Amino acid sequence: MATRTPSSQRTGTRGLIPEEAGRQRAVIDAVLPVVDAGRFAVKAIAGEPVHVQANCFTDGHDVLRVMLCWRAEADATSQEVEMKLDSNDEWLASFTPEAPGRYFYSAVAWVDHFESWRHELTRRVDEEDIRIAALVGAELIEDAAKRAKSTDKAELKSWAKQLRKPHSDTQTLKALALDENQAAVARRHPDRQQAVHFPIELPLVADRERARYSSWYELFPRSASSQPGQHGTFKDVEARLPYVAEMGFDVLYFPPIHPIGREKRKGRNNALSTEPGDVGSPWAIGSLEGGHKDLLPELGTWEDFRSLVSKAHELGQEIAMDIAFQCAPDHPYVKTHPEWFRWRPDGTVQYAENPPKKYQDIYPFNFETEDWRALWLELKSVFDHWISEGVTIFRVDNPHTKAFPFWEWAITTIKRDHPEVLFLAEAFTRPKVMHRLAKLGYSQSYTYFTWRNTKQELTEYFTELSQGPGKDYFRPNVWPNTPDILSEHLHAGGRAVFALRLVLAATLSASYGIYGPAYELLDSAPRGPGSEEYLNSEKYQLRHWGDWDVARPDSLAPLIAKVNGIRRDNPALQSNHSLRFFHTDNDQLIAYSKQTAQQTADGQNTILVIVNLDPHNPQSGWVTLDADTLKLEPTSQYEVHDLLSDQRFTWQGWRNFVILDPKQTPAHVFRLRKRVQDERHFDNFA
Amino acid sequence: MATRTPSSQRTGTRGLIPEEAGRQRAVIDAVLPVVDAGRFAVKAIAGEPVHVQANCFTDGHDVLRVMLCWRAEADATSQEVEMKLDSNDEWLASFTPEAPGRYFYSAVAWVDHFESWRHELTRRVDEEDIRIAALVGAELIEDAAKRAKSTDKAELKSWAKQLRKPHSDTQTLKALALDENQAAVARRHPDRQQAVHFPIELPLVADRERARYSSWYELFPRSASSQPGQHGTFKDVEARLPYVAEMGFDVLYFPPIHPIGREKRKGRNNALSTEPGDVGSPWAIGSLEGGHKDLLPELGTWEDFRSLVSKAHELGQEIAMDIAFQCAPDHPYVKTHPEWFRWRPDGTVQYAENPPKKYQDIYPFNFETEDWRALWLELKSVFDHWISEGVTIFRVDNPHTKAFPFWEWAITTIKRDHPEVLFLAEAFTRPKVMHRLAKLGYSQSYTYFTWRNTKQELTEYFTELSQGPGKDYFRPNVWPNTPDILSEHLHAGGRAVFALRLVLAATLSASYGIYGPAYELLDSAPRGPGSEEYLNSEKYQLRHWGDWDVARPDSLAPLIAKVNGIRRDNPALQSNHSLRFFHTDNDQLIAYSKQTAQQTADGQNTILVIVNLDPHNPQSGWVTLDADTLKLEPTSQYEVHDLLSDQRFTWQGWRNFVILDPKQTPAHVFRLRKRVQDERHFDNFA
Repeated sequence: MATRTPSSQRTGTRGLIPEEAGRQRAVIDAVLPVVDAGRFAVKAIAGEPVHVQANCFTDGHDVLRVMLCWRAEADATSQEVEMKLDSNDEWLASFTPEAPGRYFYSAVAWVDHFESWRHELTRRVDEEDIRIAALVGAELIEDAAKRAKSTDKAELKSWAKQLRKPHSDTQTLKALALDENQAAVARRHPDRQQAVHFPIELPLVADRERARYSSWYELFPRSASSQPGQHGTFKDVEARLPYVAEMGFDVLYFPPIHPIGREKRKGRNNALSTEPGDVGSPWAIGSLEGGHKDLLPELGTWEDFRSLVSKAHELGQEIAMDIAFQCAPDHPYVKTHPEWFRWRPDGTVQYAENPPKKYQDIYPFNFETEDWRALWLELKSVFDHWISEGVTIFRVDNPHTKAFPFWEWAITTIKRDHPEVLFLAEAFTRPKVMHRLAKLGYSQSYTYFTWRNTKQELTEYFTELSQGPGKDYFRPNVWPNTPDILSEHLHAGGRAVFALRLVLAATLSASYGIYGPAYELLDSAPRGPGSEEYLNSEKYQLRHWGDWDVARPDSLAPLIAKVNGIRRDNPALQSNHSLRFFHTDNDQLIAYSKQTAQQTADGQNTILVIVNLDPHNPQSGWVTLDADTLKLEPTSQYEVHDLLSDQRFTWQGWRNFVILDPKQTPAHVFRLRKRVQDERHFDNFA
Repeated sequence: MATRTPSSQRTGTRGLIPEEAGRQRAVIDAVLPVVDAGRFAVKAIAGEPVHVQANCFTDGHDVLRVMLCWRAEADATSQEVEMKLDSNDEWLASFTPEAPGRYFYSAVAWVDHFESWRHELTRRVDEEDIRIAALVGAELIEDAAKRAKSTDKAELKSWAKQLRKPHSDTQTLKALALDENQAAVARRHPDRQQAVHFPIELPLVADRERARYSSWYELFPRSASSQPGQHGTFKDVEARLPYVAEMGFDVLYFPPIHPIGREKRKGRNNALSTEPGDVGSPWAIGSLEGGHKDLLPELGTWEDFRSLVSKAHELGQEIAMDIAFQCAPDHPYVKTHPEWFRWRPDGTVQYAENPPKKYQDIYPFNFETEDWRALWLELKSVFDHWISEGVTIFRVDNPHTKAFPFWEWAITTIKRDHPEVLFLAEAFTRPKVMHRLAKLGYSQSYTYFTWRNTKQELTEYFTELSQGPGKDYFRPNVWPNTPDILSEHLHAGGRAVFALRLVLAATLSASYGIYGPAYELLDSAPRGPGSEEYLNSEKYQLRHWGDWDVARPDSLAPLIAKVNGIRRDNPALQSNHSLRFFHTDNDQLIAYSKQTAQQTADGQNTILVIVNLDPHNPQSGWVTLDADTLKLEPTSQYEVHDLLSDQRFTWQGWRNFVILDPKQTPAHVFRLRKRVQDERHFDNFA
């Protein structure tokens, strides 16, 4: 980390007159965005501009020049971009990290005597003042000439000479002094001797686009067989790829695919003992057949796996691996590296617990082992192994139960060699812990969406996610269900609740995922009343989902395909920063918009979503749009085109009426277009 | 500044396995309060507790111990206070800086295996688990014994021995293992090998109480004579001290009292030429008679000045000096240190300007001079000079037109030798500049109060001042008028507007001031329509205020005395952090409360202020108190005792009706007391 102690900081507290900073009158009070004063990296997307703000000023009325400085990690020197004063001492500029990787940015500012002189001269009217100012300017320009070379040098010298000539007409003299072309030459040679450097180079990680916008589909390969009772294979999954692709998912995520422990193996529905043929939990990793770098033989060969990865890529899907750093009691590590586990006086290892859950089939690593360096290297080598097999996305299981320093080191080190690799933190835990993991380097993070159901809950939570302090480093990935969580909300709402939660997830968050086919086939049976566990969970047994890739009348697959298609066609839905909620007079109706940030050739893509949160009854009410957000006038006419139903309506002004019947549709997903002047057609918002 | 680069930071970006941090599983995500990541000091008051929060957690379910560490600047080692987990991973503790000065605080945290073991054991029911846990505990206790000495050592050894004995009754064994007295011994000897230190020691400046709570009165000594036309003297001011003291002010502030330049001296009403007898602007400092360390001879001798300082102290008042670092053209510095000024090609110095204001009688210093070190030392010696004369408060004129690095160095250095000295920044400028000056060390700051008049303006601004990001370092000092600013609001509202602005200033802000006797004698004549300049301003001429210290029927002095008395008697009004605004259904009525932070023996002091912002008409309406803030129930009965009128009313619940006639009183300043159980009398809020 390129951090220098600011000289003024040394000054302030030691009481000695500073060595050098005394004449540095420019102040850089802040550079934004920033995470914990530069301790952690801001996150951005390669190829997209990073908008930087520097709060700069000086004493008195002199004029500053401010430069944004930025570099890729490997570059020794920074590039500079001139910053422009916006308002309230805020200077703005942007830079674009072209490739994924780590970058640094900072700012430099100085009191510019040439600009100050020009600025002051514009206000001068007194003839004598103008004559004196011309001489002052000549001095400054001669100084600039000393710093310039060749043509610029000659030009500046000549300009200064003209200013030194006696002029009877001070208006001519003033115009000469304020000549814009000459000024442009002088600006190229500023006096930066007293330039102030912001003391910290702020780190930034640029990821590829999928870090910002991704649609995940989780499935258990072992349940992919078309034959009931038969263990699924990678080949079976390969046959399902078109089905997943047609639904529009671009990340296909597997629970662990490694050998599963036989000791203390769990039976169906988390039973402590097994029946013959029980396949155990994929998260109880390791057996005599191998560990984290090996494949469960029942799933197939390395060749099969490689073929699957390759076919998935062809269909626009990436395979995301589950990394669960824990071991079944018969994992090879337990024998070869007993020092990586915490042994009790009775010669046993305490199994993992997440009260009230008990994982008798799982040993945690002891991150306090004296052999921690070897442990870290071995765990990192697990990632490296799968990266070498073409895997570029990792969903990390319970990262909050492994030592935090490990993650920062592992993610940073891996991304240095493989900046394209993404990490999703599966941490459903306390907010500060989840934020810390994001700061340490996780590209995406699980969220509380699974338990946020009411309008108020959703509004508060997604406002926090999109506008709150985490917006520069915490990228939400929201899941209506996971193999661990069949939220109570889904138990009794029927197909309608699955549909509305899908639309919410896919439109509130640029990244979302479902655990299927449980989701699209509407599996809503909990292990017991009020339980969040699935009955007959795939965590402990094979499931046969029937002909899931053949159209079933009640399947959500067509809706999901439509929604993912809308996401793909509408860039507004591919990021979260523009999310804004609107007032509705019915608490069962939630309304929000997303817009693309900047005008493009196509105008501004604007999506307005209205969801009926009640899966049982039609709900209607008035939606009041925010005039500022959507730049609407009371008389604005605009087309709202429901991309789900393909219906088009013409709306006017801020308040409009909607009615949504859950039997027909969970939501309106409107694209908004304003009526253009000839009144014959509509166009995107400009 | 005691700053260490965190080792995990080195880890994160270099990619090497860290040397030492690998096993440090505790995380300290933040320590609060903090200003710019410790770049600047948090402000506090000596003798009052500083409440520190550390956001700490670890992976998994282990238990942390967290210590607040703090020290005075001169101390080599820190003291530790155990922090307690509040909620949401926030740990709290406080320390009290007993004397004014500079302090540092930080936090240290570690995963405590002894506490984790106890915590886990409380949940164990399985007999075998309890037996194993006893052996695990015995090991931990033996480790603690190794770190202990004498009695503790023996006690811990014996405890471990008991735990290792075979126990048939595991309930007895569990009770023995959880013994609270023994645990207290073990806690004294924790294993801190893997303790994590927050990487920054955060600086804090503790000031004396007057930094938080002060009442300022500004007067021109030269106008203090009882004889019209006669130049006032320090002796005249001394005669006025009882008048100022009776009004309840504790800081008496003088504009500059130094020799005034004769070159380019300004005439009355800022005229460019003088008439015989014109006294010039006190801010045009310096003449053949001396400079910033000298007294204007007309005001009296050093003996007179010292007598005045001493008499003021006897009456509970401190003298605040105006420090204006600028020079009249005939200031001695201009001859002895021409290198401290910026000379133009015509051999002149550009006078000071603050567009559109021009100060032809004033030269600014050139802080970019190559001789800046000598300039800094000389300017600091001005403060030192007046401190040696017993002055302990400085109001600094336009600090934002002098180089910022100078202020940080000067204030820090001066306060190291004289921690009791306070600095008030007279900077009416852009928000970020004002905040920077506060961060650099100013104890108090001028504000925009002077131009905030409506309910919405006042509510937003004072909410920002009391709750916003500046609350830990920016202490507002609000002025309804200054010699430079007769705000337009005061021009036409008569006595009532002066009264209401006084009450607002004195109750919204713990520190406030007025420029008198212009204020209490209701001087409302501007130099021209819409001008903020006073007609016949004392800045350029003597004023004779008549017998200002003799009661005049229209004088505000009795009201001011009453308000300052209320401030003195009610600690709620002596700080700003508790300020909360309440809804009223009339925009001319503003309502707000202040409360003391903690329960004391006297209960909680609670003040509710309701001001009629309309100086012309009676206004009435319903005030809705906030139940949370005041801990009111709908049925709560409480006494509101108007400390201005001495009237008492009994109110019930949240909504109550008020009517205020500006001809009678500008405001209610209620002390609230709840009806106590026997219903015969009221008591302070508990």
